[in-house]
Amino acid sequence: MLDVLTLGNAIVDVIAHTDDDFLVAEKLHKGSMNLIDEARAMDLYGRMGQATIMSGGAAANTAAGVAALGRRAGFIGKVRNDEAGALYRHDMRAVGIRFETPDATDGPATARSFILVTPDGERTMNTYLGACQNLTPADIDEDTVRSARVVYLEGYLWDPPQAKEAFRKAVAIAHAAGNKVSLTLSDSFCVDRYRDEFLELIRTGAVDILFANIHEVKALYQTADAETALAALRAEDTPHALLSVVTRSEAGSLVISRDRTRAVDAFAVDRIVDSTGAGDLFAGGFLAGLAHGLDEVGCARLGAMAAAEVISHMGARPQRNLLDMARENGILA
Amino acid sequence: MLDVLTLGNAIVDVIAHTDDDFLVAEKLHKGSMNLIDEARAMDLYGRMGQATIMSGGAAANTAAGVAALGRRAGFIGKVRNDEAGALYRHDMRAVGIRFETPDATDGPATARSFILVTPDGERTMNTYLGACQNLTPADIDEDTVRSARVVYLEGYLWDPPQAKEAFRKAVAIAHAAGNKVSLTLSDSFCVDRYRDEFLELIRTGAVDILFANIHEVKALYQTADAETALAALRAEDTPHALLSVVTRSEAGSLVISRDRTRAVDAFAVDRIVDSTGAGDLFAGGFLAGLAHGLDEVGCARLGAMAAAEVISHMGARPQRNLLDMARENGILA
Repeated sequence: MLDVLTLGNAIVDVIAHTDDDFLVAEKLHKGSMNLIDEARAMDLYGRMGQATIMSGGAAANTAAGVAALGRRAGFIGKVRNDEAGALYRHDMRAVGIRFETPDATDGPATARSFILVTPDGERTMNTYLGACQNLTPADIDEDTVRSARVVYLEGYLWDPPQAKEAFRKAVAIAHAAGNKVSLTLSDSFCVDRYRDEFLELIRTGAVDILFANIHEVKALYQTADAETALAALRAEDTPHALLSVVTRSEAGSLVISRDRTRAVDAFAVDRIVDSTGAGDLFAGGFLAGLAHGLDEVGCARLGAMAAAEVISHMGARPQRNLLDMARENGILA
Repeated sequence: MLDVLTLGNAIVDVIAHTDDDFLVAEKLHKGSMNLIDEARAMDLYGRMGQATIMSGGAAANTAAGVAALGRRAGFIGKVRNDEAGALYRHDMRAVGIRFETPDATDGPATARSFILVTPDGERTMNTYLGACQNLTPADIDEDTVRSARVVYLEGYLWDPPQAKEAFRKAVAIAHAAGNKVSLTLSDSFCVDRYRDEFLELIRTGAVDILFANIHEVKALYQTADAETALAALRAEDTPHALLSVVTRSEAGSLVISRDRTRAVDAFAVDRIVDSTGAGDLFAGGFLAGLAHGLDEVGCARLGAMAAAEVISHMGARPQRNLLDMARENGILA
């Protein structure tokens, strides 16, 4: 039995501090995730600063958050049998995440995201998908999916060509087993690339719990106005009851169900060092909260706490004992 | 022209959080640097937590501190032509350190230190020396050494069998050119291994500036009493005037010359996250201060500031702009 099984791109993060001038010179939109090829990856790496290397990948970060909060987490994603893949597998095992997707034994290298962190703590990601392109429906182990109370899927899975089929297979298995399906919209540029598909997933009832930040909701409904976007989201007439959780950075989150919207405060942070993983850990905290039996507002508080921890240091995986932190803050008993 | 050329073991750090129980179970003395073989390295890595990978190595960290303070730094050390070696070379170039030692093209892999960080911020290092064992006198480029106002050498160089000859060659070239030689004692266990050699280096005038922490000075003179150890150090009758700088963590540092001892406060730190690199960055700050023309007390203040920055985050390389930080704190104009 798993509390949460996440499915996503398995990516090693290569993180460096930079300044705004570098982003401008490289024509990078601050805060975005850009897909790059191997040549561009080598070129960018050659010019970026001293790097810190850590496991990442949105859905895997979420699984790490669930595990750090004492719940059973699994992950499905594709690495190659190279040094970066071994590092990735080590880290998943080290934090207790069930990760049994076999290595790719040929084809492109383990994915890397070259992450530039500006002094304001904002991160700009440049991702070479590499071995993630080899995730296929064959990697979706039916028993594993069936054993998970919630399956969590990242919108980024629409980028590698075959992964969306893996995604659809996981949804079908989960719903057939009576389990919940959760989707994150991942990134506003990702929403721009796959708007119609994401709306179709929501409208056909493939999604029970939707995670998005406010920029992604605005991108989904092609509006610059947050209230218009939120109203459109509330008006979605879905076959299953849809629970939407919308994060708004320091303005806190909104928990939106058919009949009401509840606002939950952000968790205080001394200094934002690196915002990488904020949304991923919010989702991880929220889903761990559900597994702990918290109500939805309690889940959003736990999500906010996990997000606050991860943005207070470099890298997208928790460094503090989140379970202790939740108890100290009265969120978990 | 270089302000500081450092010579040491080129090591990639693999850092993980752990707890005191793990150190006890692994029979590790907290705060120490232990030499391990490849089999032990694989074994330990398999059981340690999620890891962050960054360039490290004491003398290279010191060079990074000098560069981050706006002075010209170089490094001599040995990596292999493998992935970790490429990462190392990238990082040295990225922070502007001159690093021209050729890769080893065969033999053991690039060195790794498996660093366990306990919740008190203390680090315990387990180092596989790998390619460092191939650093030889042939790697000491005479023109480079002659061009450096200060050559900085780490005591750890006594561990790989041929590196001590490289060390002696660098000392001879530096002194023949009228430049200064600086030595760090590195670690109290390292002092235990090579006490006689280090005392000989000091007593024969091979060393102009000695860096040590108080534990290393006690180990050097085989006493548990700090005052006894410091008195023994002050009593050394060296051919050149010896300047000793002794660090004492939050108790600040002592700048000891033949005729006087001056105490300099530590720099305030909110929370010690990871003490890795504290001594290295203290030395880097001190030597950068000399290059900036500060007096010895000013140098020790700059060292304390650089050390404080590096212990406030994971990893042994500066993450903030140290030059700005020094100006904000009135240490540099």
